[in-house]
Amino acid sequence: MLADKKLDGYLFVGISDILYLTGFQSEGLFCLVTAKGTWIFTSALLAEQVRESTSGVKLIVGQRLTVSLKELRAKHRLKRLGFDSEQIFYRVGAALATQGLLPTPNPLEALRIVKDAEELDLLRRAGEITASAVQWMIPRVRAGMTEIQMARMIRNQFEKRGASDIGFELIAAVGPHTALPHHHPTEAVLKKNQAVLFDVGCRVGPYRSDLTRTFYYGTIPAGFKRVYGIVESAQKAGFEAVRPGHRGGEVDRASRGYIEKAGYGRYFVHSTGHGVGLDIHEPPWIRDKSQDVLASDMILTVEPGIYLPGRFGVRIEDTLRVTSRGYEILTKGKNE
Amino acid sequence: MLADKKLDGYLFVGISDILYLTGFQSEGLFCLVTAKGTWIFTSALLAEQVRESTSGVKLIVGQRLTVSLKELRAKHRLKRLGFDSEQIFYRVGAALATQGLLPTPNPLEALRIVKDAEELDLLRRAGEITASAVQWMIPRVRAGMTEIQMARMIRNQFEKRGASDIGFELIAAVGPHTALPHHHPTEAVLKKNQAVLFDVGCRVGPYRSDLTRTFYYGTIPAGFKRVYGIVESAQKAGFEAVRPGHRGGEVDRASRGYIEKAGYGRYFVHSTGHGVGLDIHEPPWIRDKSQDVLASDMILTVEPGIYLPGRFGVRIEDTLRVTSRGYEILTKGKNE
Repeated sequence: MLADKKLDGYLFVGISDILYLTGFQSEGLFCLVTAKGTWIFTSALLAEQVRESTSGVKLIVGQRLTVSLKELRAKHRLKRLGFDSEQIFYRVGAALATQGLLPTPNPLEALRIVKDAEELDLLRRAGEITASAVQWMIPRVRAGMTEIQMARMIRNQFEKRGASDIGFELIAAVGPHTALPHHHPTEAVLKKNQAVLFDVGCRVGPYRSDLTRTFYYGTIPAGFKRVYGIVESAQKAGFEAVRPGHRGGEVDRASRGYIEKAGYGRYFVHSTGHGVGLDIHEPPWIRDKSQDVLASDMILTVEPGIYLPGRFGVRIEDTLRVTSRGYEILTKGKNE
Repeated sequence: MLADKKLDGYLFVGISDILYLTGFQSEGLFCLVTAKGTWIFTSALLAEQVRESTSGVKLIVGQRLTVSLKELRAKHRLKRLGFDSEQIFYRVGAALATQGLLPTPNPLEALRIVKDAEELDLLRRAGEITASAVQWMIPRVRAGMTEIQMARMIRNQFEKRGASDIGFELIAAVGPHTALPHHHPTEAVLKKNQAVLFDVGCRVGPYRSDLTRTFYYGTIPAGFKRVYGIVESAQKAGFEAVRPGHRGGEVDRASRGYIEKAGYGRYFVHSTGHGVGLDIHEPPWIRDKSQDVLASDMILTVEPGIYLPGRFGVRIEDTLRVTSRGYEILTKGKNE
C-alpha cells in the first residue's frame, strides 16, 4: 500500500490507527510504518505499557519526534515519508513538512473500512447489547425521570450485558430537546405527553455501535405520528440503497429525497449516516456527494431525522453491515 | 489581550476554549474573536443548539471555514489574525496559513490559568466529591474484585454524590499493573497481598479534579512501605514549593529531587503535576524546566510516583489551589 503511493513510510498519529496497527491504545503516540520496520515514539511515561502490549515494534522513548525522525531517515534511507495531515496538529505538521515529509491521505483507511470476522463478531455483539438495553429501557420510562437518569440507566444495562464501555456520550432528550440533534443530557424532567429520544451505543472491546430510537410518552399527537412515519420510511428508503457497488452519496440521496418530497427537507440538518468501527464516526461517509463505494463487510449507520425547533425531533438510526446482496441490521432487538 | 499581540483577532478551535468564551461545548466548532465581534462557524447540525446556548455571538452556518473567513476579513478589515496551531489540524492550519493567518500562542491561556470564585466553587466541589468517594471505596476493597468493577464503584459514588460525570477515564490497577502509570482497568482480579492504585476524578459542571491513592491490600511488605514513604515525602516536598512567584519547574524539582536523592530517580517516569480546570491537563505545567509562574487561584496537581516494572508502583496525587501564601488541598477527605 505504501508502494502504491510511492512512499517509503507513513507517520500515523490517530489513536484508532495506532490501535489497529499495534494493538495498543493511547493518546500521545506517533507510529512510523516502513518496509524496514515499525517504530513507536513515546514518552517514558508510556514506554513500559507499550513494551508489554506490542510485539515486533521498535520503541523510541522520550526524544523529540523531529530529531529522532531525522536520525531514522538518515540511517534507513527513508526518503519519501507521508504524514496524516488530518490528525496531526499544525505546529507538529509544519515542522514535519519543513523536514520534507508529505501530507498524504491516510493509507489505513482502505484497510479499516472493511471488517474481518473477528471485528464483525465484536461489532455484532455491540449492536445486540445496544438494541437489547434500549428495548429494556423503553417500557421503564416514567414521568419524573431526568435525561441524565435515563442515560445512566441505559449505560448500566450496557455494563450488565457485558459491554466494555459506552461507545460515545449517550444522548437522552425529552420534549423540545429532541429537536437538538447533539443534545447533552440535562436534569430536564420527562412529563406526560412529550417526545423522548435515545441516541446510544456501547463498545465491545474497541468496536462500537450506534442506535437511535424516538417515541412519544403519552397520547401521540397527529403531528408527531406523521413526522415519525416520514422518518421511518426515509430510513427504509436508505436501507434499500445499501448494497455493494452503491456510493455513500446514493444512500444519503435515498433517505434525503424521501424527506424532501414530504416537504421536510430543511428540517433534516445532518448527513444520513457514517461508518462505525474503532471510531464512532469513520468511513464510509453516508452524506451528500460521498463517493465512498460500499462493499461487503463495511459497517454504517442510516439515521435520517426531522427536527422542528421548539417542538420535537424524530431520528431513527440503526447500524448495518453491508452484505453481498444488500444489508444486515446489527441493532435489531431480539423480538423486533 | 489581542492588542498586546498586535492582532485584529484570533481563531479558536479548542473545545474548552470555546466553552470558556461562549458557554457552549461541542466538537467541530471554530470561533473567531475580534474587537468587532465574535463569530462561531458551525454545521447546520449544531446551529440551533449554538443559537439557544450563546448570546452576543454571530453564527456562520454550513459554509467552508476558509471561504467565510475570507469574506469576514474583507468586510471588517481584519488584517492580522492569529490561529491556534497547537489545536488546529495541519490540513486546516496550512490552508489558513496560506490565507495569511498567523500561528500564534493561545491568548486565552493567561485568562484560563487563574480561576475566579465561580470556577473555584465548582473545582472545590469536584475535589470534595472525588476525595469522599475514594474514602468510601478503600475500606470496601475486597479480594476477588476486578479493576473494572472497582472503577465503576467509584464512578457510581461520584454520581451519587452529585458529580456531573467522570473527569477522565478512571484508573484502577492491582498488583503489577500499579507500575503502569496510565493503566486502563481490566478484568484482572485483586488477590490478597497486592498493591492497589486508584487515579480518579470527577467533573462538577465542566470543572474537574484529580486524585491518586495507592495502598497495599494485605500484609504490607517492607519494600512497599519504604517506597510509599519516599513518595509521600516527595509529595510534601512538592507541596512546600507551591506558592505565588515560584515556577512550575521548581515544584517539579522539589519532588523529583527528593526521589532522586532516595535513589529512585529513574523510576519516576513522568512530570510532577499539571494544571486542572476545564481540561484535566492544562497550564500551569509542573514539569522539568517549566517557566510557568504560580499565582493565587491557580489549580494544579502534585503527583510524584515510583514505578518498579513487574512489581508495583506508588503514586500519590492531590489537586491544590495556590493561595496568597502557599497552597490549599482541594482533594483532602473530610476526616483526613
